[in-house]
Amino acid sequence: MQEIKVELTKNPKEKPAPGAPLPFGTIFTDHMFIMDYDLGQGWHDPRIVPYGPIEMEPSAMCLHYGQSVFEGMKAYRAVDGRILLFRPDKNMARLNVSNDRLCIPQIDEKFAEKAIEKLVSIDRDWVPSGEGASLYIRPFIIGVDPHVGVHPAHHLMFMVICCPVGAYYPEGLNPVKIYVEKNYVRAVRGGMGYTKTAGNYAASLKAQDEAEKQDYTQVLWLDGVERKYIEEVGTMNVFFVIDDEVVTPELQGSILSGITRMSCIDMMRHWGMKVTERKISIDEVARAAQEGRLKEAFGSGTAAVISPIGHLKWGDVVMEINKGEIGPVSQKLYDTLTGIQWGKVKDEFGWTVEVQ
Amino acid sequence: MQEIKVELTKNPKEKPAPGAPLPFGTIFTDHMFIMDYDLGQGWHDPRIVPYGPIEMEPSAMCLHYGQSVFEGMKAYRAVDGRILLFRPDKNMARLNVSNDRLCIPQIDEKFAEKAIEKLVSIDRDWVPSGEGASLYIRPFIIGVDPHVGVHPAHHLMFMVICCPVGAYYPEGLNPVKIYVEKNYVRAVRGGMGYTKTAGNYAASLKAQDEAEKQDYTQVLWLDGVERKYIEEVGTMNVFFVIDDEVVTPELQGSILSGITRMSCIDMMRHWGMKVTERKISIDEVARAAQEGRLKEAFGSGTAAVISPIGHLKWGDVVMEINKGEIGPVSQKLYDTLTGIQWGKVKDEFGWTVEVQ
Ligand SMILES: Cc1ncc(COP(=O)(O)O)c(C=O)c1O
Ligand SMILES: Cc1ncc(COP(=O)(O)O)c(C=O)c1O
Repeated sequence: MQEIKVELTKNPKEKPAPGAPLPFGTIFTDHMFIMDYDLGQGWHDPRIVPYGPIEMEPSAMCLHYGQSVFEGMKAYRAVDGRILLFRPDKNMARLNVSNDRLCIPQIDEKFAEKAIEKLVSIDRDWVPSGEGASLYIRPFIIGVDPHVGVHPAHHLMFMVICCPVGAYYPEGLNPVKIYVEKNYVRAVRGGMGYTKTAGNYAASLKAQDEAEKQDYTQVLWLDGVERKYIEEVGTMNVFFVIDDEVVTPELQGSILSGITRMSCIDMMRHWGMKVTERKISIDEVARAAQEGRLKEAFGSGTAAVISPIGHLKWGDVVMEINKGEIGPVSQKLYDTLTGIQWGKVKDEFGWTVEVQ
Repeated sequence: MQEIKVELTKNPKEKPAPGAPLPFGTIFTDHMFIMDYDLGQGWHDPRIVPYGPIEMEPSAMCLHYGQSVFEGMKAYRAVDGRILLFRPDKNMARLNVSNDRLCIPQIDEKFAEKAIEKLVSIDRDWVPSGEGASLYIRPFIIGVDPHVGVHPAHHLMFMVICCPVGAYYPEGLNPVKIYVEKNYVRAVRGGMGYTKTAGNYAASLKAQDEAEKQDYTQVLWLDGVERKYIEEVGTMNVFFVIDDEVVTPELQGSILSGITRMSCIDMMRHWGMKVTERKISIDEVARAAQEGRLKEAFGSGTAAVISPIGHLKWGDVVMEINKGEIGPVSQKLYDTLTGIQWGKVKDEFGWTVEVQ
């Protein structure tokens, strides 16, 4: 494995006071990881350096043609003081899936995981300890060739930056209001929907903005072909508890394979629940709601872990789910997953990795 | 109108020797235009400064979430020495269409056009004069908030950079080989296909790469819903001459409204030809080819102006069009459009704008 050079900052920043609000994604730690790729040379010069701006050519590939992929993961300060990552191998594997679609050279997953551990270890004092707080980790890769032309880059940068973040819902786990998007489409099969790439999020901005203006938290996307099958929420996968079946849209190329999603599925199956990955239409959900068979709905994602959905608006139909309250499945998943992440519940699955 | 501050370079670069090869998008002029946007303040501080790298926060919005739009246009050195732009108002109008979809604040189109004229005027000695050579102009806007979160940026940059470029096909107008893409989809209705935004090009990289490996120049995209209607070529719109009708896919949200496309349509109608914007399936094209009714096919775009298509491969079917040679419609459009652009043919439509 390549050696990671470390240059420690000479000007450590002041850390947020314990208990101070930590708005998502705005405060950055003292260091960042960088590694370069050059055609013929491969990934080289892995290094941890003081956090700060980078120089970019105005013609850089990523600015014009969006050759850019990323991951989102967290480090948790466990109740016993250890620092834990949650399934980081899955994030690195998914990064390589995104790389493949975006013509970005594969990374060495094991090495990248070690690099992230090393970065978190160096910035360990930045991992917050407040209730629900964590260190959000953002690995990303950008093509930076100074060349105006639609071609895969020959020079790329892999970077990792970190932000201490507070509990996603400071008031505790509260059901959110979600809005079914009818006009805009996020991704379609054959496209890039299953990857974490910049363009998917760019495509979502307008609908998300309109949802917020109408006081909804996020949008629920429908498929781009028939415009009726449920895909995912803005930055979460989605589950519906109908009768005694838990249904989540199958992975068919246009939605992200969420790591929280796969953990929820594994866990519920472990509990003996019936979980089905299949096509599910918005009509089916609305019908189940009308017939009183829609018990719960929730989103799953790294940022909020589990987000119960209290209201789902589809055109003129507004479904109130479980009287707008948290249901037992959502609550149990939330408690167990966050319990494992913060080291309060035994990690039977071997999902956590301790940062040394 | 705001005043544009000018800071001239103290280190002018050496210009390419007349007649030297000018590979597309790799050589940049001495100056660039920059203007900032801040929420509450609007677009401000327009300036022309020496060309060079910019400082970028690793968390910059555009790197992660692709809030980025651009334009592509050219300045031509006319035979009488004047420098001409081709329909720059259309590029600025389209930039605002892209802005709207990507939650980017509107720009003042007239002002932006003036800014581009001023930049080209300052770098006028960079406008090459070789046969078919021109100055490629790349206006672009990026969201640069140092904030990890999927929200429209509050701080953005509008920049314009320029590259002297040689004739797109140095050997002259030669028919290209195009490959009909069956697996990948570029864009779908409800998405961002009608805009010039980074993500659309990111989505195209893989198919384009595979086409090139098979010795095809670009791919022809099919629609993302039924996977049978023709959309556009990688960076060109597309036309088919079938019997005495010229057909081009209608603008329905997933393809770019090309400025060369609209100019071709206007011009052919002016010549009394029958031009139809409608849905056209790949089956229809293949059938017409088989029946000997497909007279010509060509792509239209700023880079190459007109690209006759000599071979079109659709799975196992390889269509040779017009014996792989340039047809009369392609040739006449090419000659007239480039004639207007280089000031050799009278500009009856008032499409050119002289840079003072
Ligand atoms: C589009 C989208 N879907 C789903 C998810 C959930 O994935 P994960 O559980 O891996 O965080 C995310 C991100 O976090 C996302 O951006
Ligand atoms: C996707 C796409 N379609 C079509 C075109 C042609 O547009 P225009 O004629 O304005 O250059 C371009 C770019 O130039 C393009 O990128």
